Amino acid sequence: MPVQRSAPPAPSKPAPDSTRRSEKSRRAIYDAALSLVVEVGYPKTTIEGIAARAGVGKQTIYRWWSSKADVLMEAFLDLGEQSLREAGPVPYTFPDTGDLAADVKGVLRATVDQLRDPRFEAPSRALAAEGVVNEQLGRELVAKLMQPSLDLYMERLRAAQDAGQVRPDVDPRIALEFFISPLAQRWLQHTGPISYEYTDTLVDYALHGLAPR
Amino acid sequence: MPVQRSAPPAPSKPAPDSTRRSEKSRRAIYDAALSLVVEVGYPKTTIEGIAARAGVGKQTIYRWWSSKADVLMEAFLDLGEQSLREAGPVPYTFPDTGDLAADVKGVLRATVDQLRDPRFEAPSRALAAEGVVNEQLGRELVAKLMQPSLDLYMERLRAAQDAGQVRPDVDPRIALEFFISPLAQRWLQHTGPISYEYTDTLVDYALHGLAPR
Repeated sequence: MPVQRSAPPAPSKPAPDSTRRSEKSRRAIYDAALSLVVEVGYPKTTIEGIAARAGVGKQTIYRWWSSKADVLMEAFLDLGEQSLREAGPVPYTFPDTGDLAADVKGVLRATVDQLRDPRFEAPSRALAAEGVVNEQLGRELVAKLMQPSLDLYMERLRAAQDAGQVRPDVDPRIALEFFISPLAQRWLQHTGPISYEYTDTLVDYALHGLAPR
Repeated sequence: MPVQRSAPPAPSKPAPDSTRRSEKSRRAIYDAALSLVVEVGYPKTTIEGIAARAGVGKQTIYRWWSSKADVLMEAFLDLGEQSLREAGPVPYTFPDTGDLAADVKGVLRATVDQLRDPRFEAPSRALAAEGVVNEQLGRELVAKLMQPSLDLYMERLRAAQDAGQVRPDVDPRIALEFFISPLAQRWLQHTGPISYEYTDTLVDYALHGLAPR
């Protein structure tokens, strides 16, 4: 679900005061949702709890979102957009300089930075942990939070196939996992440290394989 | 911690009745721990709850284990050993037929079977989910439950390097992640289906790389 769709609908002739009020409520609701899921975990986070902490009525939340999962995922998307805006006017696309290795290394270094950002870490972990035991939520997290980046990886890999830099028989949906899954597992399961050097190495191994050439 | 070390210590001259009683208690405690963590989650699973469900005193548990994390990890290791025994007298080593691809494919197919075994799935997910938000537990899970297999992968990859099948400059600790991390992420985060065909493909891509040769 794109963020725009379930944000408060703009009235046809917006009354400045009520728009400001809506925007303020929306932000208070996002902040409350993110802080609650970190403090008490996903199962104990409720619409009632979010409303109480945000200082709004339950009905205000139900007017804009259908479930706590929806509120949380949009709060999380909003956090990502905030950080993108702070980083400058960078459009969210995958770089294509013609050098696949350099492009993927750059994207993975940005992912390393994001995984280490304390604002992201706690809510990301709380949502990811619940997704492990709650398949429906897990699938929603994939569809809403991960799929857009997976699509960009696939598009970049297809361009590399067209340019003769990746074998034509390789399935881009599987190939992208060599870039994202080792990093994801180290982060999720604490199986190893995360660094630029590590993700650079992943890219080199993935492109050239482990066997002698 | 090896399972044997914290199992009930065998008396120097075992009295058959008390040994049987201990073994029966140990099994009841394992079953109680695994079923509780699935039903109420890791944070609400307590030594008291495990004792009550197992029909033993709290002190019986504290005599053998120092924490609920210890009980759960050993219960889980025991489950793995049970399933190995059922599969026949297979020693837990990594096959080395000289064909690295075939050997890794075989091990990954067995992992696919285990990830799909309903006896494993619920407790594995409950422990893994808690490890995502609880770094100390996460690190214990890695050290006690995952490290033994990671070591076997590393040993097999080093043998392949000696045999000239893997480049000598490749770090086996990173290389093994191409085999285990994509599968782990699909399973943990519900990012895609798991099958023998999928893991076979991972092995081929990892060994030969994505770039044209």
